[in-house]
Amino acid sequence: MALTKALITIDSFKQSFTSLAAGDIVAQAFTQAGITSTPVAIADGGEGTVAAFLHNKAGGKLVTQTVHDPYGNVIQAAFGWYPAEKLAVVETAAASGIQFVQPQAAYRLASSQGTGELIGAAIKLGAQKVIVGLGGSGTVDAGIGLLAALGVQFYTAAGQVLAQPLQQLTAIKRIDTSKAVTNGVTLLSASDVTSPLTGANGAVQLFGHQKGLAGAAAVKLEQEFQQLAQQLDPQQKGQVAGDGAAGGLGFGLRLLGSQVHSGFDLIAQVCQFEQLVQAADIVITGEGQIDSQSMQGKVPVKIAQIAQQQRKPCLAFVGNQVGDLAAFQPYGLTSIFPIVDHVCTLDQALAAGEVNLARTAQRVAAVLTQAI
Amino acid sequence: MALTKALITIDSFKQSFTSLAAGDIVAQAFTQAGITSTPVAIADGGEGTVAAFLHNKAGGKLVTQTVHDPYGNVIQAAFGWYPAEKLAVVETAAASGIQFVQPQAAYRLASSQGTGELIGAAIKLGAQKVIVGLGGSGTVDAGIGLLAALGVQFYTAAGQVLAQPLQQLTAIKRIDTSKAVTNGVTLLSASDVTSPLTGANGAVQLFGHQKGLAGAAAVKLEQEFQQLAQQLDPQQKGQVAGDGAAGGLGFGLRLLGSQVHSGFDLIAQVCQFEQLVQAADIVITGEGQIDSQSMQGKVPVKIAQIAQQQRKPCLAFVGNQVGDLAAFQPYGLTSIFPIVDHVCTLDQALAAGEVNLARTAQRVAAVLTQAI
Repeated sequence: MALTKALITIDSFKQSFTSLAAGDIVAQAFTQAGITSTPVAIADGGEGTVAAFLHNKAGGKLVTQTVHDPYGNVIQAAFGWYPAEKLAVVETAAASGIQFVQPQAAYRLASSQGTGELIGAAIKLGAQKVIVGLGGSGTVDAGIGLLAALGVQFYTAAGQVLAQPLQQLTAIKRIDTSKAVTNGVTLLSASDVTSPLTGANGAVQLFGHQKGLAGAAAVKLEQEFQQLAQQLDPQQKGQVAGDGAAGGLGFGLRLLGSQVHSGFDLIAQVCQFEQLVQAADIVITGEGQIDSQSMQGKVPVKIAQIAQQQRKPCLAFVGNQVGDLAAFQPYGLTSIFPIVDHVCTLDQALAAGEVNLARTAQRVAAVLTQAI
Repeated sequence: MALTKALITIDSFKQSFTSLAAGDIVAQAFTQAGITSTPVAIADGGEGTVAAFLHNKAGGKLVTQTVHDPYGNVIQAAFGWYPAEKLAVVETAAASGIQFVQPQAAYRLASSQGTGELIGAAIKLGAQKVIVGLGGSGTVDAGIGLLAALGVQFYTAAGQVLAQPLQQLTAIKRIDTSKAVTNGVTLLSASDVTSPLTGANGAVQLFGHQKGLAGAAAVKLEQEFQQLAQQLDPQQKGQVAGDGAAGGLGFGLRLLGSQVHSGFDLIAQVCQFEQLVQAADIVITGEGQIDSQSMQGKVPVKIAQIAQQQRKPCLAFVGNQVGDLAAFQPYGLTSIFPIVDHVCTLDQALAAGEVNLARTAQRVAAVLTQAI
């Protein structure tokens, strides 16, 4: 019996193409070969998370809202909205993204306020569940801007309310979340980053540099974050995995009860991924490089394991394979096909990524459709 | 139903591996994956032709014989012998090969006598059919040395017998083949070369250089061959395709009634190739580069067409694919898998050819063995 139905869930190939593009390329090749294809885009919480959800799950639409960028400028930004499920998907990149940061300019305090405003707008529309994609942010504010925008109040040691808490981080002694508009709403943080708020792998030291935060300003902010974590989170002190995502937005959202899930897990939940696997004859996944780290919970191997549980073959299209096929097969990967198919340089391979992926998909589809 | 039986017939990848090695590599990978594999080596008439026949067809053995190398030295050389079928396989490379030519030395007249002696020895053993592989020769003698060794007599215009015809090419007016030991024996020339004896694509001008034949010696020999062709072959004048193979051995053998066939056609005939295809679930072929020329009768496409006639899928493993898969599919190639699987230089790809082929075979076998 030939294969007729494929589920296609390929991670992005960095510097080459997005997950969404990969799914479309492979689905097109497979469809042309006569294989009914369901592409599911993977999101890591960063830019493209909303697009991935809207692509994967019918019934959603983009809602545009007037909010503030990291520096207080009025902008238009959008989030995903599923009226039937009262589900919203917000990505940090939309209102608080790195695109607002001028690489050459001196560091300026940047606020995640806009992301808070998008979440607030979604709740005003009736959202009972909000997925917040953490990634691609240009802010490093431990989520203070977001919390303030959502109605959280900040108090000094003397019990005074702070009107501008982000400007007075060291003055913050405690917060009151009882008036937050998110109360009664399920918040889910989508992030593939497991960094804590502070320390060498934290929001300032690991991710600050790419947002223009360095030198004395970085040292000062790190100290302020440590103090903040002590005050607001005496138990965990900002060391929960994911607290450092999106400039500490993971930390701020956790104070509102949000839990961190991987982007893939949330996509899988929303798409009823296991049912999609069950309905398919074969699962196609992939990533830029498959290697020994892939077995440590990376998305393609997660997908392969779901396929394996359901006794479905699973193929991976990859940019580069490090290690023998036999090492990956126990994890449910039936076979692996690198998309580089001719002698070339790395730059050429990256530039030709989409063409190479399409060709590889054609090759494999031609075998799969054989009545063998 | 999963695939369980594969017929593997891959052409050599020049500078990387032989057909015989390719078959073994792929058969090993397929067998490990649970696919019963029958490797059939392809020969082009050159070095390795005897080994390919002995590999492909049971019941044969090597017979070693004392003969003469191109310069008259006594050497040991071997041919393939199938007692049951009274079939012999002789390759020119064994006794008259390029390995006897010293690249830096001045050009010396070299004789194909040794190849004639091998054929004669086979006939003495009882051979009723002799396949002569034309390729890898170090001689450019229009087969005169071979003919003399087989009992052909050479006459001058005055009717005198020439004792050393190769030294007196211009004196040859006619030949008498009535006493040749090949009479009553079927001769088959195995060659993938379609050159005529003389002219720009002939034995001297196209192939002489690699055997040390150039300059005045080449001009003289070309003229002598033209005269010889006029005298001995007034109808065709040495212009039959294959006459120029192995330094004109094709011409000489034709004067004894031998017909030129491609190496693959003779292999296919001896192996009952069509029955092997019929017994297989899938056919695997391949070559160093597949491109638009492959459709002009190159071996992998010939094989694909045989598979197509029998409605069997056929895959090609290639070093390089030029052109879209869709262009090759009408010729029976189900799919094509380049074996280069990572960013590398051409030298690296050639050096890693065997490893890359094995990896590609593993990948594809893993898909084929899925119960899909």
